Amino acid sequence: MNAGAKEQIVTPWEVKGNIDYDKLINEFGLEKIDMKFVLDEYEKGNKFFLYTGRAPSGHTHLGHLIPWMFTKWLQDKFDTELWFQFPDEEKFLFKKDLEYEKVQEMVYENMLDVIALGFNPKKTHFLIDTKHAGIMYPEAIKVAKKITFSTVKSAFGFGNEQNIGAIFYTAMQAVPAFLPNILEKNKKPRPCLIPHAIDQDPHFRVSRDVIPKLGYYKPASIQCRFLPGLAGIESDGKMSSSSGDNSTIFTIDNAKTVKKKINKYAFSGGRETVEEHRRLGGIPEIDVSYQWLTFFEEDDKKLKKIYDDYKSGTLLSGELKAILITKLNTFLSAHQKKREKAKDKLDDFIYKC
Amino acid sequence: MNAGAKEQIVTPWEVKGNIDYDKLINEFGLEKIDMKFVLDEYEKGNKFFLYTGRAPSGHTHLGHLIPWMFTKWLQDKFDTELWFQFPDEEKFLFKKDLEYEKVQEMVYENMLDVIALGFNPKKTHFLIDTKHAGIMYPEAIKVAKKITFSTVKSAFGFGNEQNIGAIFYTAMQAVPAFLPNILEKNKKPRPCLIPHAIDQDPHFRVSRDVIPKLGYYKPASIQCRFLPGLAGIESDGKMSSSSGDNSTIFTIDNAKTVKKKINKYAFSGGRETVEEHRRLGGIPEIDVSYQWLTFFEEDDKKLKKIYDDYKSGTLLSGELKAILITKLNTFLSAHQKKREKAKDKLDDFIYKC
Repeated sequence: MNAGAKEQIVTPWEVKGNIDYDKLINEFGLEKIDMKFVLDEYEKGNKFFLYTGRAPSGHTHLGHLIPWMFTKWLQDKFDTELWFQFPDEEKFLFKKDLEYEKVQEMVYENMLDVIALGFNPKKTHFLIDTKHAGIMYPEAIKVAKKITFSTVKSAFGFGNEQNIGAIFYTAMQAVPAFLPNILEKNKKPRPCLIPHAIDQDPHFRVSRDVIPKLGYYKPASIQCRFLPGLAGIESDGKMSSSSGDNSTIFTIDNAKTVKKKINKYAFSGGRETVEEHRRLGGIPEIDVSYQWLTFFEEDDKKLKKIYDDYKSGTLLSGELKAILITKLNTFLSAHQKKREKAKDKLDDFIYKC
Repeated sequence: MNAGAKEQIVTPWEVKGNIDYDKLINEFGLEKIDMKFVLDEYEKGNKFFLYTGRAPSGHTHLGHLIPWMFTKWLQDKFDTELWFQFPDEEKFLFKKDLEYEKVQEMVYENMLDVIALGFNPKKTHFLIDTKHAGIMYPEAIKVAKKITFSTVKSAFGFGNEQNIGAIFYTAMQAVPAFLPNILEKNKKPRPCLIPHAIDQDPHFRVSRDVIPKLGYYKPASIQCRFLPGLAGIESDGKMSSSSGDNSTIFTIDNAKTVKKKINKYAFSGGRETVEEHRRLGGIPEIDVSYQWLTFFEEDDKKLKKIYDDYKSGTLLSGELKAILITKLNTFLSAHQKKREKAKDKLDDFIYKC
């Protein structure tokens, strides 16, 4: 999962053998104390719960799936509760022209993708900010009372022209990190582990200071690196649906679209001519197709062989792209079937107040 | 109700004869167009609804009752729906040491006072922000998106050290001014009339700009002057429970306490000695007991006689105080009985989502 982790590739699907906590902590760039705390508590029988989320504004793309798949892996391995937030006000408040109704459609579409990944319906609870405001807002104000405009100004770079909903919003994002302790008062207070993409870090840096003041455990974070956009690692580093459909593969894209997008837009680390490629070899470090395979190919040996073959010039760019296309379309074909079935499962996942 | 309205005293209890709209508008210092609009719509059969509220932080005092009694008069005269907000996060967010649990107690106590005033249970709906956040927050974010920090900074004098809950709060206060139109979609959109104490004006000045942008009628306000504190008109002008129990009469005060507070703390416009008082007369304009009677004595003729007798020196300060004490204790004795009965009526008033 970590950008510098070429030798040890940890995919969201599986990790073989015993988990090397110290190595993971180091690679994820976490403060050691926090992750250690959560795991120590776990070993003492004080199981953490997981919290992650998705701020809906458009269709789910493959980049969104990375931290969710990692979260599912954590849920499976540790057999934990997961609170999955859909803050349907966030993008609405931060994007001038985004309409409330559009966001509501996307909440639905995004929920299908989350369910399709196979989270345990008995242990997974969706919180949709506007639908669950009745249980979230009373807690958000307690968080909000302890955060000044100065703090969010520096954490998020807000100016005075920022709207007051966006200013308040971080308080809503803090709530699921302790809400389960309130909803299940009969249980012992439990720590919270938050797997999230690195762009959410400012929210959790703010809330990690506040939550202990309210009498709950300081939440621990695991941050994921971004799946690069098709246009390449150097151009933006994050796949974004707002930077155009062609830099993004959506979970609803069909096989033909995937093939076209990869062949046409995936930045290549190959050489100008076949002859030159055979002689000099490709550059996997800048090749988006290879980089994507580091996320989607779970077999370390296969991945190593692809790297070596591409680097040596044995594997051509078109062949590398073909490997990725097959990989993605196999995955998406299965995902889309599960996504259809998810339409009947929403009720099992949306938290009932 | 208006500070300058010595000749024409309009009490919340009753107005005899036809309502002189122009005169009221002038006295209430309203922009004529708004009140006229609401009344014009009313005459066309497009009935307005009323919206007022109480931000709980302590027990209800007599000053709180003034706009509520006026609101009841409006409800009775125009046979309208009333939405009564209890923003139980407001004072919590604005007062550093006020605890959430204390506010929750006071929501209950304050609701009893509102019910005791005799509002129509079929047409009166309580909205408690934390309990009704499920229907209020989704609308508040739409308001909030249209209000910048600059706006609330200048409207409320906020600095960067203000907490983000307090910054957001005005959006929640705007919601009941249009929420009934959303909750009762089958009805034609209706205008909103907001009777409120003048200190709430900044909230409504902000929201009056925003609400029409969301597609609802611009709400109209009627502002009430404050009942002066016992210490006198010049010292603060507003009776405040936070400036000490002795400047305030609470609705739960007993007859003995009321007598003691009026006799000991009500600022007198009387003279140093009885002889001097008989010779020069009292000064009703600065006498708190007389000023309170302008709120609580509904009989214009009786009030006029009290004014004349006090001014001429016929009525002594102690006698004036005795009139007020009798008036208040008669009122409070009845109010406290109704307040007890209100404990069984809460369910009729709290809005069911």
